Amino acid sequence: MASPHRQAGRTACFAGQVPAASGVRGTWPGCHGGGCCGDQVVAASGAKRRGGGGRARPSAPQHPALAHGRHGVGRPGGVWRTFQRDPEFGPDGRGGDALPELLHGQPPVLPIQGSSAHRTSAHPQRLLYHQWARQERHLGHRPQFHPLKHGFDEWFGSPNCHFGPYDNKARPNIPVYRDQEMVGRFYEEFPINLKTGEANLTQIYLQEALEFIQRQQAAHRPFFLYWAVDATHAPVYASKPFLGTSQRGRYGDAIRELDDSVGRILRLLRDLSIAENTFVFFTSDNGAALISAPRQGGSNGPFLCGKQTTFEGGMREPAIAWWPGHIPAGQVSHQLGSIMDLFTTSLSLAGLEPPRDRAIDGLDLLPAMLQGRLTDRPIFYYRGNTLMAVTLGQYKAHFWTWTNSWEEFKQGIDFCPGQNVSGVTTHSQEEHTKLPLIFHLGRDPGERFPLSVASIEYLDALHRITPVVQQHQEALVPGQPQLNVCNRAVMNWAPPGCEKLGKCLTPPESVPEKCSWPH
Amino acid sequence: MASPHRQAGRTACFAGQVPAASGVRGTWPGCHGGGCCGDQVVAASGAKRRGGGGRARPSAPQHPALAHGRHGVGRPGGVWRTFQRDPEFGPDGRGGDALPELLHGQPPVLPIQGSSAHRTSAHPQRLLYHQWARQERHLGHRPQFHPLKHGFDEWFGSPNCHFGPYDNKARPNIPVYRDQEMVGRFYEEFPINLKTGEANLTQIYLQEALEFIQRQQAAHRPFFLYWAVDATHAPVYASKPFLGTSQRGRYGDAIRELDDSVGRILRLLRDLSIAENTFVFFTSDNGAALISAPRQGGSNGPFLCGKQTTFEGGMREPAIAWWPGHIPAGQVSHQLGSIMDLFTTSLSLAGLEPPRDRAIDGLDLLPAMLQGRLTDRPIFYYRGNTLMAVTLGQYKAHFWTWTNSWEEFKQGIDFCPGQNVSGVTTHSQEEHTKLPLIFHLGRDPGERFPLSVASIEYLDALHRITPVVQQHQEALVPGQPQLNVCNRAVMNWAPPGCEKLGKCLTPPESVPEKCSWPH
Repeated sequence: MASPHRQAGRTACFAGQVPAASGVRGTWPGCHGGGCCGDQVVAASGAKRRGGGGRARPSAPQHPALAHGRHGVGRPGGVWRTFQRDPEFGPDGRGGDALPELLHGQPPVLPIQGSSAHRTSAHPQRLLYHQWARQERHLGHRPQFHPLKHGFDEWFGSPNCHFGPYDNKARPNIPVYRDQEMVGRFYEEFPINLKTGEANLTQIYLQEALEFIQRQQAAHRPFFLYWAVDATHAPVYASKPFLGTSQRGRYGDAIRELDDSVGRILRLLRDLSIAENTFVFFTSDNGAALISAPRQGGSNGPFLCGKQTTFEGGMREPAIAWWPGHIPAGQVSHQLGSIMDLFTTSLSLAGLEPPRDRAIDGLDLLPAMLQGRLTDRPIFYYRGNTLMAVTLGQYKAHFWTWTNSWEEFKQGIDFCPGQNVSGVTTHSQEEHTKLPLIFHLGRDPGERFPLSVASIEYLDALHRITPVVQQHQEALVPGQPQLNVCNRAVMNWAPPGCEKLGKCLTPPESVPEKCSWPH
Repeated sequence: MASPHRQAGRTACFAGQVPAASGVRGTWPGCHGGGCCGDQVVAASGAKRRGGGGRARPSAPQHPALAHGRHGVGRPGGVWRTFQRDPEFGPDGRGGDALPELLHGQPPVLPIQGSSAHRTSAHPQRLLYHQWARQERHLGHRPQFHPLKHGFDEWFGSPNCHFGPYDNKARPNIPVYRDQEMVGRFYEEFPINLKTGEANLTQIYLQEALEFIQRQQAAHRPFFLYWAVDATHAPVYASKPFLGTSQRGRYGDAIRELDDSVGRILRLLRDLSIAENTFVFFTSDNGAALISAPRQGGSNGPFLCGKQTTFEGGMREPAIAWWPGHIPAGQVSHQLGSIMDLFTTSLSLAGLEPPRDRAIDGLDLLPAMLQGRLTDRPIFYYRGNTLMAVTLGQYKAHFWTWTNSWEEFKQGIDFCPGQNVSGVTTHSQEEHTKLPLIFHLGRDPGERFPLSVASIEYLDALHRITPVVQQHQEALVPGQPQLNVCNRAVMNWAPPGCEKLGKCLTPPESVPEKCSWPH
């Protein structure tokens, strides 16, 4: 990495796209909850238990992969279609945070180990305690899932993307919170002009982040900042100074603002002389949403399809780690990673060991980042509860192929615009569990040329993949889905604090029903 | 650019692919001549005359865009299909070099201006005089087109790619020359093991380049080196130390060797303390040949289709200029460029002005590279003699669409594997001259989403493009095609020097016939 600002620039400029230098694949559940934000949930944690020697974990509200470092797979017991979205991420809410709790030293179920000499000497703990969240999304709508109830000390953001505007009758506009209480709603106190594309949201989130860091530094408190801005999700927006400044339309303007913002955060860390004590990781939750391209979405470069699919375009993201004085500038790692790894890596940075009472899927990435050590590990790609594919080394095997339904496709909803790989980008759910489609991602990153099933290379790859998948599936203990009930009544009608603002809305009658996700 | 070696590394690593940072589009005719090397000839110069105020130029053997800085379009007078390959690049040979002649100070038709103060102070002339060619391709087979007859002082290479192996009866293996005479043939004195993928050709070419530079430096002679290696063309090869070293198969191995070689050339320039006097430009002749992908070809990243087409995947290439002390490291230019510009740029570096007796299409890129100045200029995309498309600013208008014929496609020859943009990647030749398909390349670099013809944006773009195309077409003076006759008898049966080696072959009976190019 040439310089922090340059790196930030490059990173942010590629948010949702894939720079060729990135060897780390991040998987991260995007914005869930509204029912219209169709992320893939491959790496989302859930209420299910995963064994592998560990004890079953009590059912509890859950949070994304970062917070648990575990696969999110729950067998829904027959009420869900094979390819249905993970039932635990229905629109009626979710939450729960193992990582913040662990980092606070108040683990719910496990003992905490002291920090190692190496960690202590590097003082990375600084970045962890006194957590704070800027989670404008990734959270459920219901009070029990509020981030401040799950280890975070501060929160500014919203429990969902900026979907809308809604009429506050059929559906309420999504609220924005400061800590315990809402401070307004998208399109109301937090305006987004869909016509001009102007909104100040990224600037607001940036200021919140800068002030948070300054406050922690003034109080000599280590901190953990989760800065997951709302921008670049469709409908895209940017603030006035950035609108019209890119050659990439409004989406490019939003990326430029994100770029600039990350640069300003890194600059502040430098100015406060805490850059060498602060570990920064930049990545994306999924590939570009090609259903929104090109005006409202990004590009997945050479990769196949986009968000909502388990092809590389949906799953492979840029990932950049920044830690001056520790991670050499310009270093490229070919370690295969996942957002789940940030759970384990964060604990490692704090000198903590991951919980021992459960199987943890996340890998500590520090050996890869600090010593260039590579760990051969599989990445499993789920869609709902179905294991769609697995990557091991350079090989990716697809056990099922599906983009979206013919019904959706005929309505013009296309997850793979301009792409059509015969027998691969299928609109019916095609099973290949006996003879998976196998691609060599090194020479065919676009998943266009399946290996011949008659080739020695295919048989060798299959021979390596099969036992890994078997082991994974045998160790997986199905959990009880919690969030498979949809109910409009639990949406954001009257969040805490609405009385003070005079913004409480009357919820409709409570009608719990099974959630329906089209893909 | 971080460092010369790093840049070289990155450049070479992306040869035939498109790093997102590249704002320069290079167009360059690849290897022509064998009848099976199907490059696009958009920017190839030819025997046609182009007016625009200039005098007609005498018909003469021609050479690529670099050597002339002019579009290569000749109206063939009805014997060619609309979409046929430029008739002047038939397999019976071609040649001619304006640039070498001009740089030698022996221009055939025009006066030479002295060098400017700026140029003199930077001593860039050093890189130009005493030209030398390492043209293993881009040359005709016939003696009159030999590079040493057109301004070059040395030559090591061959007049075509490493097609073969041939049986020397139906078709001779392609010879390798040192200066005037052949020194062997591919697959014979210059072995290529197609089974193992091992060949030392890149190492041989590298040594020739290094020795050439050292000789010129020892003699205090400025030089011009055209290092166009044969490697990365299918069937791909690499030398033993590189075979199996990449995660991208044999193609990746070849790229790594190219990468390493460019790095070694740059290092030598540094070691000889002439880096600041030497201008280096790295680019590719066309996009990746997807017909050879993934084992024998590259990837065009987000761009549509590949070599042989006038979509971005066939035409948009990485381009890196390196001139320590003059071009700031890491600078990115959004100047739209073409290989034709290297003609004008080379003259400018030498303090010469381009010929005034003809219209020159090439742009001097030095203002873009040295002062960051951008010039708004169109780029015209030809296929044969047909103007397929034009790019102006962020807009690209397609007047014709065509990938390849249904006949070819049904045989499995696919220029756009895995890609299918309805009405765009057509297998019949579709005319859109009245209402061109227009794409905004900034937000849609993959040419997937044509603008709606009913939109204001479309009308605005068309309004800007139409007069530019009109002006271009009015200024174009058709020339007489010279190389539209194919004749197996003129192939490399008995090149000069074959007697000494005992390698003269008996040519078949001379049967001139019209050349047939499938695409």
